[in-house]
Amino acid sequence: MSDSPAGVVDLLGVLAYAELTAFLRLAEDAAAFAPSLTDRAALSDLAAAEYAHFRLLRDRLTWLGVDPEEAMAPFVAALDDWHAQTRPGDWLEALVKAYVGTGIAGDFYREAARHVDPETRKLVDEVLAEESRSEFVVERVRAGLAENPKLSGRLALWARRMVGEALSQGHRLAAARPELALLLVSMAPQEAGTSEAGTGEDLVEIGRLFARLTEEHGKRMAALGLVPGP
Amino acid sequence: MSDSPAGVVDLLGVLAYAELTAFLRLAEDAAAFAPSLTDRAALSDLAAAEYAHFRLLRDRLTWLGVDPEEAMAPFVAALDDWHAQTRPGDWLEALVKAYVGTGIAGDFYREAARHVDPETRKLVDEVLAEESRSEFVVERVRAGLAENPKLSGRLALWARRMVGEALSQGHRLAAARPELALLLVSMAPQEAGTSEAGTGEDLVEIGRLFARLTEEHGKRMAALGLVPGP
Repeated sequence: MSDSPAGVVDLLGVLAYAELTAFLRLAEDAAAFAPSLTDRAALSDLAAAEYAHFRLLRDRLTWLGVDPEEAMAPFVAALDDWHAQTRPGDWLEALVKAYVGTGIAGDFYREAARHVDPETRKLVDEVLAEESRSEFVVERVRAGLAENPKLSGRLALWARRMVGEALSQGHRLAAARPELALLLVSMAPQEAGTSEAGTGEDLVEIGRLFARLTEEHGKRMAALGLVPGP
Repeated sequence: MSDSPAGVVDLLGVLAYAELTAFLRLAEDAAAFAPSLTDRAALSDLAAAEYAHFRLLRDRLTWLGVDPEEAMAPFVAALDDWHAQTRPGDWLEALVKAYVGTGIAGDFYREAARHVDPETRKLVDEVLAEESRSEFVVERVRAGLAENPKLSGRLALWARRMVGEALSQGHRLAAARPELALLLVSMAPQEAGTSEAGTGEDLVEIGRLFARLTEEHGKRMAALGLVPGP
């Protein structure tokens, strides 16, 4: 069951909708907030990359014989709500969202992908590898903070809010899609089924998962020149 | 002067900004109006293609030693105003805009590209060749009209409004950028300079240009199942 079609289809479905929505929201933010045409083009570039990712995931779902629209449907409300709760108010907030918000979401998907078949994992890792494209975000945010150091408190709070909203929507999805949630704990379902100590090890593993997520989030905040906050 | 850097840079600049803006507006319309995730993805696909075109044009400007932002700047107001005047109110209007509005704009750029150096012309033609991608637009609009034939009057008016606004912004650009406007008449500027009959032949040529534009517009309207109107 660790190659469970339900879990794999859920992972590809949520990630496909995440990429499609990220594409549309980044384009919206680029149109609304970019202070120059060069900046607008740079954020548009990130947006277009998300669309290319969406296409890979959609094609994979089709190849698996799954209707992409059906695979994405269960995740529309949670992801739309996340975006509605994290609508940027200006250019720097849009950039921090593109980097920190997209980053923490990517970490979750990457963790889930550790327990699926190698081919799916390779696709997910490919879709989530975008460090080089985000470099301009880091540069722009650091330049903005250098110009006005007082912004760091507000942007750190903003980043924290995005993580909070991500956890909140993550909980909601985990309750609604148990196969997807099971992918997040390193013990594959069939191992859990054959092990007496399932629950205890699960908890340890969940602790490790959150330690990894926290660490990656901290790295991103540091890269931007922000303090993660309590 | 038919290879005039000013005219070529203007053509690449206006087309680059047109593609960047089309990308952002199509993404906005996909997010706002698509009735299904499949439709949202299909319009997003058109949007992503526009972004790829923008990138080709931007790279060409950079290769020519021109700052893309400076090349695009003179055209921002006219193109932004065109989009502001043609903001769709629903999904079918968004599709008609994507097909008819983008189509007439493309015809103008294609005409201008007839009188520049072969390399620029090849790039412009490549960027404007998107018939296959627009097939889904034709299908959706025809299906919408089959379902509700009464819509055809409103959509035909909508298409006419886009053409009117395009001509109006085109006039504005022609007045502000004479080098670009000169590219639209088939007599290259140096020929006009050596010919006594320049003015008369210009008028004949402008008549032919509008005949071609009208014919292409009529073909697009017919493809959608709409009557061009008076």
